[in-house]
Amino acid sequence: MVVTLLTDFDDFYVGAMKGVLHGITDAEVVDIYHDLPRQDVRSAAFALLNTAPWFPDGSVHCIVVDPGVGTDRKAVAVVVDGGRQTIVAPDNGVALPAARKMGEYEVHEVRYESPESSTFHGRDVFAPAAAEIAEGKPVYEEEPIDDYVDLEFGTAIRTSSGFSAEVLYVDSFGNAVTNLEGGRLLEAADFGETLRVNGREIPFQDTYARVDEGGLLGTIGSHDNFEVSVNRGSATELMDIDTEDRLEIEV
Amino acid sequence: MVVTLLTDFDDFYVGAMKGVLHGITDAEVVDIYHDLPRQDVRSAAFALLNTAPWFPDGSVHCIVVDPGVGTDRKAVAVVVDGGRQTIVAPDNGVALPAARKMGEYEVHEVRYESPESSTFHGRDVFAPAAAEIAEGKPVYEEEPIDDYVDLEFGTAIRTSSGFSAEVLYVDSFGNAVTNLEGGRLLEAADFGETLRVNGREIPFQDTYARVDEGGLLGTIGSHDNFEVSVNRGSATELMDIDTEDRLEIEV
Amino acid sequence: MVVTLLTDFDDFYVGAMKGVLHGITDAEVVDIYHDLPRQDVRSAAFALLNTAPWFPDGSVHCIVVDPGVGTDRKAVAVVVDGGRQTIVAPDNGVALPAARKMGEYEVHEVRYESPESSTFHGRDVFAPAAAEIAEGKPVYEEEPIDDYVDLEFGTAIRTSSGFSAEVLYVDSFGNAVTNLEGGRLLEAADFGETLRVNGREIPFQDTYARVDEGGLLGTIGSHDNFEVSVNRGSATELMDIDTEDRLEIEV
Repeated sequence: MVVTLLTDFDDFYVGAMKGVLHGITDAEVVDIYHDLPRQDVRSAAFALLNTAPWFPDGSVHCIVVDPGVGTDRKAVAVVVDGGRQTIVAPDNGVALPAARKMGEYEVHEVRYESPESSTFHGRDVFAPAAAEIAEGKPVYEEEPIDDYVDLEFGTAIRTSSGFSAEVLYVDSFGNAVTNLEGGRLLEAADFGETLRVNGREIPFQDTYARVDEGGLLGTIGSHDNFEVSVNRGSATELMDIDTEDRLEIEV
Repeated sequence: MVVTLLTDFDDFYVGAMKGVLHGITDAEVVDIYHDLPRQDVRSAAFALLNTAPWFPDGSVHCIVVDPGVGTDRKAVAVVVDGGRQTIVAPDNGVALPAARKMGEYEVHEVRYESPESSTFHGRDVFAPAAAEIAEGKPVYEEEPIDDYVDLEFGTAIRTSSGFSAEVLYVDSFGNAVTNLEGGRLLEAADFGETLRVNGREIPFQDTYARVDEGGLLGTIGSHDNFEVSVNRGSATELMDIDTEDRLEIEV
Repeated sequence: MVVTLLTDFDDFYVGAMKGVLHGITDAEVVDIYHDLPRQDVRSAAFALLNTAPWFPDGSVHCIVVDPGVGTDRKAVAVVVDGGRQTIVAPDNGVALPAARKMGEYEVHEVRYESPESSTFHGRDVFAPAAAEIAEGKPVYEEEPIDDYVDLEFGTAIRTSSGFSAEVLYVDSFGNAVTNLEGGRLLEAADFGETLRVNGREIPFQDTYARVDEGGLLGTIGSHDNFEVSVNRGSATELMDIDTEDRLEIEV
């Protein structure tokens, strides 16, 4: 049994959450990542989508990227497949792409007394709720809600010459991951061909080391999405692209 | 039973400490944070103050921010409430604010043979001492000492127009946390009012999202202290303030 | 029983590896460090050399710094002292300095089906292999191989005036660690003397705090190698040196 933590804190605040967790549950506490782009709910949702499904049954995920902390936004527990996995998160959509990928899910409002602080619900709401759930105590309303905030990454648009895609995530290597599914691109282009991305010729390869050091390439990353990369370098620097930018991909 | 780690290492060195710990104890090793401002004992003390008290009874905290490594500064074990929690640290005051908050404490000198290195007591002194203490072996002198180094954050000074406070900690969001206790400020001002901080008008609000994105605000953070913040931005950048700066707060 | 993780990911990718590990083994998963210099196999080898030997018998180390991911480079399990410790890594030499230090070792090719991705073998090859090995299942070929990639740090060259050394690692404090063994230098110079490093006079001291704040020094670090440091500052910034640079040290 594990409780995972995924935040944009990159500071000792995550230690306070761990103290609360260890005081309530003997579950192993697992860091996923704490240096997510600050306050960026879409990037956080993408990170959860690509990590939570790899955890074993019974895992509880506690994710806190929470620009609305202290307002009247709800706290939710997203229960997947009747409790096979549970995500505890602010009601800002961050949990939904992962939940959708993992199975059938219901969104429940977390019950909590007015917390000690209005600026740190990670410590005062989400950590204790995740710990209680890990201990088998469903500290959320029995009836699921429908009016939760959803979030979708959408999908790339088919254009006359290829695809128009959105950059969903920029990783620490400088890879720009898009919402163009690899399978769709592979129907239109084979590895070894040359693509045009925002007007620039880029080889389409199955892995980074197929091009020289410093060379741009397009590939299908571990998330099964098309990404623009540089072998041993940063594509986002070289092409000056960022999260939410659009890429016009000609095949 | 957990042993926590809090350092300014941000490098593989913390891995060597974990190796030593796992060789001595089966206690769970918990990362609090390893990217504290380098060699900054006051920031480290503030981080420990706001994390250690949240851990359950029996926890041992191992904190290494140690500009005096290899000199004749002592290593200490600060035993809180007769062993309810213990902090192992260099004798530079880093443990004292947390100990004072948690309960009655005694400071003991850690016994250790001359360590393998003169530059890495985290691995050679503090980690083994914390692990032994977690195993119930008090590897420190029985008699507490009085001549340890203390550290206090002080408190904001009441001025004719408000308070003169010191910035204790700058967090990764760019919030500037001061030594003005929230309770004292709330006796002089209500949420919704406007404060002047270093001559600048700033709304006083109960949480970040009460102001527009990019807007400055003053609030009472999760540490119960007054902090200057920017909603989804960095107050320390916007106001060009840093740790140890003084803020003149007019109410 | 622990499985350690050492990568250059600094992103949520390490969370996917942890999910896979926790699905296969109950071993405790221990982060060594995830912000290694990107794609830098020599720095990673140095980090492993200075951490793995401190872990207890039975540990399995999973290290992923892998510029050749998805090419035909092998995955290897380096088995030390008949299984006392095991390192799972790409066949790029990263594991060899640590293995050599720890004892007798054999290099085995890891068996794996074609993995789900060609860009993330950390999740699809190394994590599951490490987890299976931690569970006592040797998922590698029985016969060791001889044609693995090796990596050596070499040693400083004795010159007429002292030593010519290479910078092996730049740590987060800005210390520049060389391949000059401390014992060799101590035969030629005593602490308290002055060295010349790349023409610059630098005191040789047993620890950082022997010089004023901001002052350069040479010392013998916790890895037993000569390093150039600044007390509470960065030597690599002050002297403009980086990994793989050569230092001419006059004694």
